[in-house]
Amino acid sequence: MFNSISFRGSFRSKAPIRVIINLNLKACLSSTKPSLSTSLLNVDNINQNIRNLEYAVRGPLVIRAAQLKKELKQGAKKPFKSVISANIGDCQAMNQKPITFIRQVLACATDTRLLASSDVPNDVKDRVKEILEYCGGASVGSYSDSGGVEIIRKHIAEYIKERDGGVECDWQNVFLSTGATQSIKTILSLINQRKSSKPVGVMIPIPQYPLYSATLCEFGMHLASYYLNEDSNWNLSLDELRRSFKEGKEKSDIRAIVVINPGNPTGSVLTEQNIVEILDFANENNLLVIADEVYQHNVYDENSKFHSFKKVMFTKTNHRIELASTMSASKGFMGECGLRGGYCEISNFRDDVRAILYKGLSSWLCPSVLGQITMDCVVKPPKEGQDSFLLFESEKDKILADLKRKAKLVADTFNSVEGVKSNRVAGAMYAFPRLLLPEKVIQEAKSRNLAPDYYYVSEFLENFGVCVVPGSGFGQQPGTYHFRTTILPQPDIFEDMMDRFRKFHTQFLTRFS
Amino acid sequence: MFNSISFRGSFRSKAPIRVIINLNLKACLSSTKPSLSTSLLNVDNINQNIRNLEYAVRGPLVIRAAQLKKELKQGAKKPFKSVISANIGDCQAMNQKPITFIRQVLACATDTRLLASSDVPNDVKDRVKEILEYCGGASVGSYSDSGGVEIIRKHIAEYIKERDGGVECDWQNVFLSTGATQSIKTILSLINQRKSSKPVGVMIPIPQYPLYSATLCEFGMHLASYYLNEDSNWNLSLDELRRSFKEGKEKSDIRAIVVINPGNPTGSVLTEQNIVEILDFANENNLLVIADEVYQHNVYDENSKFHSFKKVMFTKTNHRIELASTMSASKGFMGECGLRGGYCEISNFRDDVRAILYKGLSSWLCPSVLGQITMDCVVKPPKEGQDSFLLFESEKDKILADLKRKAKLVADTFNSVEGVKSNRVAGAMYAFPRLLLPEKVIQEAKSRNLAPDYYYVSEFLENFGVCVVPGSGFGQQPGTYHFRTTILPQPDIFEDMMDRFRKFHTQFLTRFS
Repeated sequence: MFNSISFRGSFRSKAPIRVIINLNLKACLSSTKPSLSTSLLNVDNINQNIRNLEYAVRGPLVIRAAQLKKELKQGAKKPFKSVISANIGDCQAMNQKPITFIRQVLACATDTRLLASSDVPNDVKDRVKEILEYCGGASVGSYSDSGGVEIIRKHIAEYIKERDGGVECDWQNVFLSTGATQSIKTILSLINQRKSSKPVGVMIPIPQYPLYSATLCEFGMHLASYYLNEDSNWNLSLDELRRSFKEGKEKSDIRAIVVINPGNPTGSVLTEQNIVEILDFANENNLLVIADEVYQHNVYDENSKFHSFKKVMFTKTNHRIELASTMSASKGFMGECGLRGGYCEISNFRDDVRAILYKGLSSWLCPSVLGQITMDCVVKPPKEGQDSFLLFESEKDKILADLKRKAKLVADTFNSVEGVKSNRVAGAMYAFPRLLLPEKVIQEAKSRNLAPDYYYVSEFLENFGVCVVPGSGFGQQPGTYHFRTTILPQPDIFEDMMDRFRKFHTQFLTRFS
Repeated sequence: MFNSISFRGSFRSKAPIRVIINLNLKACLSSTKPSLSTSLLNVDNINQNIRNLEYAVRGPLVIRAAQLKKELKQGAKKPFKSVISANIGDCQAMNQKPITFIRQVLACATDTRLLASSDVPNDVKDRVKEILEYCGGASVGSYSDSGGVEIIRKHIAEYIKERDGGVECDWQNVFLSTGATQSIKTILSLINQRKSSKPVGVMIPIPQYPLYSATLCEFGMHLASYYLNEDSNWNLSLDELRRSFKEGKEKSDIRAIVVINPGNPTGSVLTEQNIVEILDFANENNLLVIADEVYQHNVYDENSKFHSFKKVMFTKTNHRIELASTMSASKGFMGECGLRGGYCEISNFRDDVRAILYKGLSSWLCPSVLGQITMDCVVKPPKEGQDSFLLFESEKDKILADLKRKAKLVADTFNSVEGVKSNRVAGAMYAFPRLLLPEKVIQEAKSRNLAPDYYYVSEFLENFGVCVVPGSGFGQQPGTYHFRTTILPQPDIFEDMMDRFRKFHTQFLTRFS
């Protein structure tokens, strides 16, 4: 019955190719791609922006690390007993325990029979009832408004107001999103309107989080780099902003500046004064400010404090300029990455622009209602006197205290090793040490057609089983080399990792001395 | 201290405007947008594709319906006692009960202490343990691979193979997504590469689901309409496909055809023969086939059956052409819209193209792990003999039986009313009846600058409290008028809705006779 199969010619090829093959039923029932296929879609005729984008924290090294893990599990002999993944801010994958209150609220909201259980604390039940009253059919299985469940948006607004010392927050300026990722993509897409043949440009700190470079590439937008000053704790200088803007303007229509505070991958925390300068600069140059503030709970340095861009704008400047601030349930002390909760607050947007922004969101229907509820628990934790208060506080404090210790340990370790230099990790979840690589390493990497820091970290992975991300994935001053490591592995594993690093680095330098 | 505020001039305005206002501290602490603002972002300089997109199922009528609900709650007098929302396929918002097994698995995976509870069935516990073994740190709070949790992808592949009578399914061709929405946007974005000044075009059935028109608009792609034949149960004719392709080719580079089966909003179910014709047509014209098969569990007509495009391609044709099939946890019998689970299977894609597709997905990190687990429960329901089997089957059967009865009732009711005509609702969750509107109605609507069917359904909402969506939101043959209603309200409310419809339609026609 089936005696021929047509393989369609490439859409762009000169002539379609048709191959006739004898087939038996088994082959016919197989969906394996025929090897002779010349397909409609090939790497040259699909979206080249997607082809070109890179997302280093999920790049080839991570795939290799997963492979090594599998091989170890299957009994393969390696020079290490376990693979340590320090490539991505994935707290619970590194065995951070979830916050009990959050999980109880989610479980109870999902299986409402638990509302009748005596094992469930009262404040959990109250929270669930409060939220479900705002869900269609009192179910988390209903779509919410595209901007999110109304009561959760209101709780977020209350949280922001309190965080910012009383600066008002209109809940209708807050929208929930699938992690912070969707917020950022949404805002970048909103401003992607060319007024000339030049692309729209966005100023991005270097080093940056690869979501920005990947999204700008995907949207065909221009990335105008401004370099953070490694020599002064990754601070941000006004001169560098001006240089970047001037250069970027030649190639693009610059419409926004992204600031990541606390910094990823740098671990730095901006001072109030630095934020004022950035706002002055944005005001002067008509730039939307995109403040990535997902690490607002992660400040470890005694002399640093998190200041939101919004609070600083409204209390320390007279500017009332457009600002979008993003937050996530994936970081902080909760680390609920897989639940995909996040939000964005927009300030000083015109109402008609906001309406269009929300209309655009509606084509996504809504973010996960359970992700939204996760965010709710973060912005409205149990209060003193409530059943879950003490446990919540102790779990949260332990996680943040562990991170604080590791933040110190990581910088100290790196700085104790020859040829490595790290700024203090004042916040976020990462260190981004600089590597002073001998010329021989650079030549060896070149001969392998690899970036020197990529070569370095791949050797670290292959020989010591630690997966970190090369600085080239985040951007760095030309001629400098770095890598990013998270500080997320649990204390004993973290110490093991630091130990492996010391050994590797010494061996590596010896090899190339 | 704060005595002036600068309002930045419009980015495109001739001159920046600076307004000096006396301020007291209270005003300074308020984030209310100043009314005089001339902002950086305005409706003309933001992304015009987002400005122009429309998503009818969440349009102004839905906002009005929400308002009416609030007014009723506050005691306002209306000519109706309740608002019935039949605008969107949001099952649980219409009080459909969630499937117990799904909710138990989700709750237990979220709060793993429930694994120790004697109230939780064994097959629920087994499922949770099986899945968590594949999650980082055995937690749903970890990121999964961007394509989804491996074991869930494998379960989906097994489901597809069984559904398709043994046609092989490679789990690596399956990726999880945030509802079906993200799958569809991902595939459309992938092919959005111009080879000339013409935009990329996609053939879309009319009537269609507004996600397609909205996304094509957002991505700057061309929508090439092909009309479904209302007179023959919304079937799809080859002549019409050829006409559409020929016309569309003049304006665009047509690269794909979308087919929604079972049909939304039409409620039709394609025959195997019709699918073969579409595949022949796609093969002949080098088109990627995007099969929206999210209603594959929703077939009510005794003479209809769901046939997947993949099965038909591999068993009834010799074509091996690129196909993307989407599925959702939001429809079927489960109706878990708020959990945002979905998947896409790609067939016959080149490996290098698939790798780029997955790289693009990685910039989203991953879809909600709980959404993924919802999908797992759908594709791998409890088996005979397992603890949850009987309850699962009875809950599922009841929901589908109710839908089946309402599918018949809705068409019968519409066809019993003068000036209304409906095809049978063979599948999905909607009816799309045609309205034969008197000329006077059309004139009245025109004088109000409204589409006639928009005017009709807004009168239905204002006077009888039923929210449905005008046909113009889905597309229809020029000069014809329709609306879409879901069949989701629970049986008693559904009968009430049909009753309100009969009364409204009669009154409305009398008014304009």
